[in-house]
Amino acid sequence: MLDRVFGALSDPTRRALLARLSQSEATVGELAEPFDVSRPAISKHLDVLERAGMIHRVRDGRVNRCQFDGEPLEEAARWVERYRRFWEGRLDALAQFLEAEGEDG
Amino acid sequence: MLDRVFGALSDPTRRALLARLSQSEATVGELAEPFDVSRPAISKHLDVLERAGMIHRVRDGRVNRCQFDGEPLEEAARWVERYRRFWEGRLDALAQFLEAEGEDG
Repeated sequence: MLDRVFGALSDPTRRALLARLSQSEATVGELAEPFDVSRPAISKHLDVLERAGMIHRVRDGRVNRCQFDGEPLEEAARWVERYRRFWEGRLDALAQFLEAEGEDG
Repeated sequence: MLDRVFGALSDPTRRALLARLSQSEATVGELAEPFDVSRPAISKHLDVLERAGMIHRVRDGRVNRCQFDGEPLEEAARWVERYRRFWEGRLDALAQFLEAEGEDG
Protein backbone atom coordinates (compact mmCIF):
# COMPACT_ATOMS: atom_id res chain seq x y z
CA MET A 1 0.00 0.00 0.00
CA LEU A 2 2.89 2.40 0.74
CA ASP A 3 3.96 1.88 -2.90
CA ARG A 4 0.65 3.27 -4.13
CA VAL A 5 0.51 6.07 -1.56
CA PHE A 6 4.00 7.39 -2.30
CA GLY A 7 3.43 6.83 -6.02
CA ALA A 8 0.24 8.88 -5.85
CA LEU A 9 2.11 11.66 -4.04
CA SER A 10 4.86 11.82 -6.68
CA ASP A 11 2.82 14.06 -9.00
CA PRO A 12 2.21 17.80 -8.38
CA THR A 13 -1.35 17.77 -9.80
CA ARG A 14 -2.30 14.87 -7.52
CA ARG A 15 -0.79 16.64 -4.49
CA ALA A 16 -2.77 19.77 -5.38
CA LEU A 17 -5.98 17.72 -5.77
CA LEU A 18 -5.39 16.16 -2.35
CA ALA A 19 -4.68 19.56 -0.79
CA ARG A 20 -7.96 20.86 -2.26
CA LEU A 21 -9.96 17.82 -1.10
CA SER A 22 -8.47 17.92 2.39
CA GLN A 23 -10.48 21.14 2.82
CA SER A 24 -13.84 19.92 1.54
CA GLU A 25 -15.37 17.39 -0.82
CA ALA A 26 -15.82 18.42 -4.45
CA THR A 27 -17.14 17.18 -7.78
CA VAL A 28 -14.76 16.27 -10.61
CA GLY A 29 -15.86 19.43 -12.43
CA GLU A 30 -15.04 21.63 -9.43
CA LEU A 31 -11.70 19.90 -9.05
CA ALA A 32 -10.79 20.28 -12.73
CA GLU A 33 -11.58 24.01 -12.85
CA PRO A 34 -8.37 25.55 -11.45
CA PHE A 35 -6.13 23.19 -13.41
CA ASP A 36 -4.93 23.64 -16.95
CA VAL A 37 -5.59 19.96 -17.55
CA SER A 38 -8.44 18.14 -19.33
CA ARG A 39 -11.22 16.57 -17.30
CA PRO A 40 -10.25 13.02 -18.40
CA ALA A 41 -6.70 13.74 -17.20
CA ILE A 42 -8.06 14.85 -13.82
CA SER A 43 -10.18 11.69 -13.71
CA LYS A 44 -7.09 9.56 -14.25
CA HIS A 45 -5.30 11.34 -11.41
CA LEU A 46 -8.35 10.73 -9.21
CA ASP A 47 -8.22 7.03 -10.14
CA VAL A 48 -4.63 6.88 -8.89
CA LEU A 49 -5.60 8.62 -5.65
CA GLU A 50 -8.59 6.29 -5.24
CA ARG A 51 -6.48 3.16 -5.73
CA ALA A 52 -4.14 4.48 -3.04
CA GLY A 53 -7.15 4.82 -0.71
CA MET A 54 -6.61 8.57 -0.38
CA ILE A 55 -9.96 9.60 -1.82
CA HIS A 56 -13.40 8.03 -2.17
CA ARG A 57 -15.93 8.77 -4.87
CA VAL A 58 -19.48 9.07 -3.58
CA ARG A 59 -22.44 9.10 -5.98
CA ASP A 60 -24.66 12.14 -5.34
CA GLY A 61 -27.58 12.16 -7.78
CA ARG A 62 -26.03 12.64 -11.21
CA VAL A 63 -22.57 13.70 -10.02
CA ASN A 64 -19.69 12.00 -8.28
CA ARG A 65 -18.36 13.77 -5.24
CA CYS A 66 -14.78 13.11 -4.16
CA GLN A 67 -13.94 12.87 -0.48
CA PHE A 68 -10.51 12.99 1.10
CA ASP A 69 -9.37 10.09 3.29
CA GLY A 70 -6.32 10.85 5.44
CA GLU A 71 -5.79 7.29 6.66
CA PRO A 72 -3.09 6.29 4.11
CA LEU A 73 -1.21 9.52 4.88
CA GLU A 74 -0.94 8.31 8.49
CA GLU A 75 0.97 5.25 7.33
CA ALA A 76 3.16 7.32 5.01
CA ALA A 77 3.85 9.78 7.84
CA ARG A 78 4.93 6.94 10.16
CA TRP A 79 7.42 5.66 7.58
CA VAL A 80 8.87 9.09 6.79
CA GLU A 81 9.01 10.16 10.45
CA ARG A 82 10.91 7.06 11.47
CA TYR A 83 13.86 7.72 9.18
CA ARG A 84 13.67 11.48 9.49
CA ARG A 85 14.09 11.18 13.26
CA PHE A 86 16.95 8.79 12.78
CA TRP A 87 18.58 11.41 10.58
CA GLU A 88 17.94 14.19 13.11
CA GLY A 89 19.50 12.01 15.79
CA ARG A 90 22.60 11.58 13.67
CA LEU A 91 22.87 15.33 13.03
CA ASP A 92 22.52 16.00 16.77
CA ALA A 93 25.24 13.45 17.52
CA LEU A 94 27.49 15.10 14.92
CA ALA A 95 26.85 18.55 16.40
CA GLN A 96 27.69 17.27 19.89
CA PHE A 97 30.86 15.65 18.57
CA LEU A 98 31.97 18.86 16.84
CA GLU A 99 31.18 20.86 19.97
CA ALA A 100 33.21 18.50 22.14
CA GLU A 101 36.08 18.68 19.63
CA GLY A 102 35.91 22.48 19.76
CA GLU A 103 36.17 22.45 23.54
CA ASP A 104 39.18 20.16 23.41
CA GLY A 105 41.03 22.33 20.85
CA MET B 1 11.88 17.82 -5.88
CA LEU B 2 8.92 16.33 -3.96
CA ASP B 3 8.03 14.47 -7.18
CA ARG B 4 11.38 12.69 -7.13
CA VAL B 5 11.35 12.09 -3.38
CA PHE B 6 7.87 10.53 -3.30
CA GLY B 7 8.61 8.67 -6.55
CA ALA B 8 11.77 7.21 -4.98
CA LEU B 9 9.78 6.12 -1.92
CA SER B 10 7.14 4.32 -4.02
CA ASP B 11 9.27 1.16 -4.34
CA PRO B 12 9.80 -1.37 -1.51
CA THR B 13 13.40 -2.17 -2.49
CA ARG B 14 14.30 1.52 -2.45
CA ARG B 15 12.63 1.99 0.94
CA ALA B 16 14.60 -0.99 2.26
CA LEU B 17 17.85 0.43 0.84
CA LEU B 18 17.13 3.76 2.52
CA ALA B 19 16.31 2.04 5.81
CA ARG B 20 19.63 0.18 5.61
CA LEU B 21 21.62 3.31 4.72
CA SER B 22 19.97 5.36 7.46
CA GLN B 23 21.91 3.15 9.88
CA SER B 24 25.34 3.35 8.28
CA GLU B 25 27.00 3.91 4.92
CA ALA B 26 27.61 0.86 2.74
CA THR B 27 29.08 -0.22 -0.59
CA VAL B 28 26.85 -1.30 -3.47
CA GLY B 29 27.97 -4.90 -2.89
CA GLU B 30 27.00 -4.77 0.79
CA LEU B 31 23.66 -3.24 -0.14
CA ALA B 32 22.89 -5.83 -2.82
CA GLU B 33 23.66 -8.82 -0.58
CA PRO B 34 20.35 -9.21 1.33
CA PHE B 35 18.24 -8.61 -1.77
CA ASP B 36 17.16 -11.17 -4.32
CA VAL B 37 17.93 -8.65 -7.04
CA SER B 38 20.88 -8.28 -9.43
CA ARG B 39 23.59 -5.75 -8.71
CA PRO B 40 22.72 -3.65 -11.80
CA ALA B 41 19.11 -3.53 -10.57
CA ILE B 42 20.32 -2.29 -7.17
CA SER B 43 22.49 0.29 -8.95
CA LYS B 44 19.45 1.57 -10.83
CA HIS B 45 17.51 1.91 -7.57
CA LEU B 46 20.46 3.80 -6.09
CA ASP B 47 20.43 6.14 -9.13
CA VAL B 48 16.80 6.98 -8.40
CA LEU B 49 17.59 7.63 -4.72
CA GLU B 50 20.60 9.76 -5.71
CA ARG B 51 18.57 11.88 -8.14
CA ALA B 52 16.08 12.48 -5.31
CA GLY B 53 19.00 13.70 -3.14
CA MET B 54 18.38 10.96 -0.59
CA ILE B 55 21.78 9.31 -0.93
CA HIS B 56 25.24 10.38 -2.02
CA ARG B 57 27.88 8.17 -3.58
CA VAL B 58 31.36 8.79 -2.25
CA ARG B 59 34.43 7.35 -4.00
CA ASP B 60 36.57 5.38 -1.52
CA GLY B 61 39.58 3.92 -3.32
CA ARG B 62 38.16 1.36 -5.73
CA VAL B 63 34.67 1.22 -4.29
CA ASN B 64 31.72 3.60 -4.10
CA ARG B 65 30.24 4.06 -0.67
CA CYS B 66 26.64 5.19 -0.38
CA GLN B 67 25.63 7.65 2.31
CA PHE B 68 22.14 8.48 3.49
CA ASP B 69 20.95 12.09 3.36
CA GLY B 70 17.80 12.77 5.37
CA GLU B 71 17.27 16.33 4.09
CA PRO B 72 14.69 15.47 1.36
CA LEU B 73 12.73 13.39 3.90
CA GLU B 74 12.31 16.57 5.95
CA GLU B 75 10.50 18.23 3.07
CA ALA B 76 8.38 15.12 2.43
CA ALA B 77 7.54 14.93 6.15
CA ARG B 78 6.41 18.58 6.15
CA TRP B 79 4.05 17.94 3.23
CA VAL B 80 2.58 14.75 4.68
CA GLU B 81 2.26 16.19 8.20
CA ARG B 82 0.38 19.23 6.97
CA TYR B 83 -2.49 17.24 5.46
CA ARG B 84 -2.36 14.49 8.03
CA ARG B 85 -2.94 17.07 10.79
CA PHE B 86 -5.74 18.60 8.79
CA TRP B 87 -7.31 15.15 8.62
CA GLU B 88 -6.83 14.59 12.36
CA GLY B 89 -8.47 17.94 13.03
CA ARG B 90 -11.47 16.95 10.96
CA LEU B 91 -11.78 13.61 12.77
CA ASP B 92 -11.62 15.43 16.13
CA ALA B 93 -14.32 17.87 15.00
CA LEU B 94 -16.50 14.94 13.88
CA ALA B 95 -16.04 13.18 17.23
CA GLN B 96 -17.00 16.37 19.10
CA PHE B 97 -20.06 16.80 16.89
CA LEU B 98 -21.18 13.21 17.49
CA GLU B 99 -20.60 13.62 21.23
CA ALA B 100 -22.68 16.81 21.33
CA GLU B 101 -25.43 15.08 19.31
CA GLY B 102 -25.38 12.23 21.83
CA GLU B 103 -25.84 14.64 24.74
CA ASP B 104 -28.78 16.30 23.00
CA GLY B 105 -30.57 13.01 22.28
